[in-house]
Amino acid sequence: MHFTSEQRLDGGVLERAFSFGDIPGILWTPAPAPAPTPTPLILIGHPPLGLRRMYPRLAGRARHYAAEYGFASATIELPGSGERPRWAAAEQARADLRRAMEAGEPVGDEIVDALILPLVDKAVPEWQAVLDALLALPGIGGPVGYEGGVISIGVRLARVEPRIVAAGLFAGSLVPAAMYEEARRVTVPLHVLLQWDDEGNDRQAALDLFDAFGSTEKTLHANLGGHTGVPQFELDTGARFFARHLNRTAHRR
Amino acid sequence: MHFTSEQRLDGGVLERAFSFGDIPGILWTPAPAPAPTPTPLILIGHPPLGLRRMYPRLAGRARHYAAEYGFASATIELPGSGERPRWAAAEQARADLRRAMEAGEPVGDEIVDALILPLVDKAVPEWQAVLDALLALPGIGGPVGYEGGVISIGVRLARVEPRIVAAGLFAGSLVPAAMYEEARRVTVPLHVLLQWDDEGNDRQAALDLFDAFGSTEKTLHANLGGHTGVPQFELDTGARFFARHLNRTAHRR
Repeated sequence: MHFTSEQRLDGGVLERAFSFGDIPGILWTPAPAPAPTPTPLILIGHPPLGLRRMYPRLAGRARHYAAEYGFASATIELPGSGERPRWAAAEQARADLRRAMEAGEPVGDEIVDALILPLVDKAVPEWQAVLDALLALPGIGGPVGYEGGVISIGVRLARVEPRIVAAGLFAGSLVPAAMYEEARRVTVPLHVLLQWDDEGNDRQAALDLFDAFGSTEKTLHANLGGHTGVPQFELDTGARFFARHLNRTAHRR
Repeated sequence: MHFTSEQRLDGGVLERAFSFGDIPGILWTPAPAPAPTPTPLILIGHPPLGLRRMYPRLAGRARHYAAEYGFASATIELPGSGERPRWAAAEQARADLRRAMEAGEPVGDEIVDALILPLVDKAVPEWQAVLDALLALPGIGGPVGYEGGVISIGVRLARVEPRIVAAGLFAGSLVPAAMYEEARRVTVPLHVLLQWDDEGNDRQAALDLFDAFGSTEKTLHANLGGHTGVPQFELDTGARFFARHLNRTAHRR
């Protein structure tokens, strides 16, 4: 992992762009605390729309986590997004999805599987390798949370990666049928956001997924509105969820 | 309204028992703020199990609201509960409910209607009369919220009482079919708690009720666990909901 640029944001938050092999990413770290303790780390996921396009929303979350709670956070470009090479099957699945949605047809299981499963299979080991590198950096060593979209990536990561002790998931993307089985084997505390009127997402499917999770502590926050209408106040309820689980002594600064 | 006793709780919170006609109640008020502003008021509802039995939970909520957010709050004994006179039809409905639940039978609409509708019809005008009296007290004049159980009382109050500007409801009781129609006419911001595995409450019915509300801002918080298992952290998410809506400048003290 090597850093390619850095800038200081409000509240003393340090933002550093990095490359890990051919994977670009961003790391945000809080201003040093008066009494240094291991800094918890949040992996911030996002839909495969490219880091540049997603940057404002991601940086807003990261700044809040760092400035208000003293958490570090990091995000990476997903395989097949941004400047990273496409692969033909994913392009085909995206085209099929677009066609189905424009025609107002139901999105078939085979489209969902082709779109999501290879993305999960590629992205999760990348996240794990980046996590190894992040935890080797000085000052980052607290427990790890995952949050954000492409809920299937979060499900897989929460299932296979023991360093992740809590996950905040956004039930706003298509979920392959196989992921419900994986969800049953997820046991970490969960905080799930659902937009009640999400245009591209089936409400009952999201409720079924929430029900399927094996975790004994799980909370669903459903808010009125469409896919991009998550209320501003949910940013802080998510941060407080992580404060409870990543650092039981963490308080808003 | 006359006060019958008072005591000082932690954090300078003043607890006063009162009588309003034949209705007993409790008012909690915060320690005076450095710069006095109109104190928002939260009406705290509860199931018809008697104020004495409910006191620890109610006082815990009221203390948190007062000490952390500077809100006043009040509760009253429901008609037919505690020392207040029973009425025969309610006793009959309670017996029918108990019989059905012990036999593991579905609770019929006629039992739910007989149990809840007269309670709503009696309790709501009482709440409104007590609200008149509370708002006439010196220092209480902020906007008003309602929170707590017997969700049908909250629905009716939110629909008919224009002084209530936000409601936090607990989807943990049986809801007459007629209340779904009333819910459509509720437009204030809502914060609804649902216990995902509530023994005495149908999950789908609760989701349908959430869906029915006419409010443009509504949030559902569903947590794993049974009826009495609402997580401790939800106390503060509810308080923060009220802080957003009762006093946009209110911050945790």
